[in-house]
Amino acid sequence: MKIAVLGYGTVGKGVDRIISERVSGVEVSRILELPDRLTDPRMTSDYAQIVEDDDIKVVVECMGGLEPAHTFILDALAKGKSVVTSNKAVVAAYFDEFVRQANATDASLLIEASVGGGIPWIASIEKVRRIDEVTSFSGIMNGTTNFIVDGMVKEGADFDQVLAEAQALGYAERDPSADIDGVDVRNKTIITVGVAFDTACEKDIPTTGIRTLAKGDLDALRAMGRGVKLLGRGVQRDGGYAAAVEPVAVPIESLEANVPSNFNLISLDATTVGPLKFYGQGAGMLPTGNAMVQDVLDFAAGLRPHYDFSRGLEWRPELLTSDYVFRTKARLDGAEPFCEGMVLVRGLSAVRAREVFEYATSVDATSFMAALPQEG
Amino acid sequence: MKIAVLGYGTVGKGVDRIISERVSGVEVSRILELPDRLTDPRMTSDYAQIVEDDDIKVVVECMGGLEPAHTFILDALAKGKSVVTSNKAVVAAYFDEFVRQANATDASLLIEASVGGGIPWIASIEKVRRIDEVTSFSGIMNGTTNFIVDGMVKEGADFDQVLAEAQALGYAERDPSADIDGVDVRNKTIITVGVAFDTACEKDIPTTGIRTLAKGDLDALRAMGRGVKLLGRGVQRDGGYAAAVEPVAVPIESLEANVPSNFNLISLDATTVGPLKFYGQGAGMLPTGNAMVQDVLDFAAGLRPHYDFSRGLEWRPELLTSDYVFRTKARLDGAEPFCEGMVLVRGLSAVRAREVFEYATSVDATSFMAALPQEG
Repeated sequence: MKIAVLGYGTVGKGVDRIISERVSGVEVSRILELPDRLTDPRMTSDYAQIVEDDDIKVVVECMGGLEPAHTFILDALAKGKSVVTSNKAVVAAYFDEFVRQANATDASLLIEASVGGGIPWIASIEKVRRIDEVTSFSGIMNGTTNFIVDGMVKEGADFDQVLAEAQALGYAERDPSADIDGVDVRNKTIITVGVAFDTACEKDIPTTGIRTLAKGDLDALRAMGRGVKLLGRGVQRDGGYAAAVEPVAVPIESLEANVPSNFNLISLDATTVGPLKFYGQGAGMLPTGNAMVQDVLDFAAGLRPHYDFSRGLEWRPELLTSDYVFRTKARLDGAEPFCEGMVLVRGLSAVRAREVFEYATSVDATSFMAALPQEG
Repeated sequence: MKIAVLGYGTVGKGVDRIISERVSGVEVSRILELPDRLTDPRMTSDYAQIVEDDDIKVVVECMGGLEPAHTFILDALAKGKSVVTSNKAVVAAYFDEFVRQANATDASLLIEASVGGGIPWIASIEKVRRIDEVTSFSGIMNGTTNFIVDGMVKEGADFDQVLAEAQALGYAERDPSADIDGVDVRNKTIITVGVAFDTACEKDIPTTGIRTLAKGDLDALRAMGRGVKLLGRGVQRDGGYAAAVEPVAVPIESLEANVPSNFNLISLDATTVGPLKFYGQGAGMLPTGNAMVQDVLDFAAGLRPHYDFSRGLEWRPELLTSDYVFRTKARLDGAEPFCEGMVLVRGLSAVRAREVFEYATSVDATSFMAALPQEG
């Protein structure tokens, strides 16, 4: 089977290397690259040479960004070519449009690498759903922020210090806002809602990152038996769903609290199989390349993931409700003392908590907030 | 597709219930039961009525035990029927024979439910192996012993007290030796060696359970930053492999140390995808039934797991070597003080450690031993 790779950066190179060294029966016959980087006879800068080539069955998009990835993916699907992508931004933004186009031409959209890197997360959800309903999911979906929090805990260091370390190691971008403000996790949460709940997710889900997390917050919560992790979460019940991205104060003896370095841990709960958790490298050339090649092999083996968002669960924020802790100089309605420097506000939906946090931040830009679920 | 279920105990009922309530296109057309329990028109006590029925494509073995399960599985495979089983004892004992028979008639042997209950462990190994070599695996594969150790830690209770609690909850058998002496984990380790390393595993792998674990051992090791878990482990390198079942003193901040109640956590390491860990319910009617139905659905979707043990890695015990701690009144060669009541012996293979432990036990029947790996 012939495939094309779009973009020859870290991930594109990883896909090409894994296929050439480890997979038989699949050939990377074309690679799309910029006109000044055509260093390999398979390379072209003209997408028409790929999308018009009937021998190419699968297009593996490794470019990142919204455009031209969005247009190239749609063009490939319109030609009946299946698309493998690790691009969470473009899938989160256009999942519904991609699914409708794929279904119209009987092409497949394969997105394993877009969430959780090498973890078989998307395929596991699809497998679970053959039998069960996925009732909720929750996870550490961003390795950079886990690396920062883990470093703050283990080294007793400040946020800025560990962020600089993460940047030096290449785990964090020079502009780290997509990671530390929760944008990356929001994209992965939107994608997981689509796969787990067959629903085009509300784009404006409440999203709070860890930019204001201080060493003192970790110490104060640890004294209460809690650690802090940035989680993407979703829940469905009775035809409705809710989702959110926010810091969560998890019990220190939970698996989540003990995820080290830049690893991911993503969980689901389902009707008959019960809770399942998956741990692994959420990023990196080889893990992400591995996930994309697994998608290619699934397609070659005849597995065709099929999404259908016509069911349309209703967005119902109150389904994701818990207590919240805040560290802020602002005075909050219903606040009770909780621990050194923090107050507790009971029974907020994630949407309402985000509103309260925005108010708190308008008064005190250093404010920090975390959900405090009753368990796990 | 028509299938037959052999045995209508907890798991057999779970399979029947999940298929009838949640799966379309699959029908349980026959059920094998004892002559005095034929309460359903699909039931028969005559296996010939199942194995001679050409409409039945898959036989789901839920009887447990070695015979007649062994004979029934071979008969079904010889007729070209594929077999789904959760019976770790029979697969561990006859894996090689089953694989040769399945390959001779182009039938499939599907064993997801034999290790890790509802955790997609076997399928994940097979998927990983499409690209990578699995270099090692390690895991909490027995919920009963995890429940006992977790209860001892959290309640500060003695072994016998938590064992009685586990028996009252139905997590442990009246005769608990298969669990607490490591026999169940040995079966699962033998099966995982087969799937991960394409090798008919040495049956006599070193096996030590947790029968002599005392509350004082947990306290002493905790003071050294370690918890205790009963792990099944395997490793392959350079054409050789080793495997063992034994208590392991894991770092208290590891995921393993924090697995609660009767859950399982099983890990693998592989060339490009890196470490992956899988957590879930390792037993129970619905999780185990779910895993068996997933096997039926994989078969229906055209996935045919294929094993080939002709490669034959060499049994090489020294590949699994680490330091060990002992609590014993026996005097051991090379023993150094380690912690309150325990000594350390460096650099033993698991086979050698088992020999040392057998000597220690011959002197002091209450002796306890745990591997002390340098990390994780």
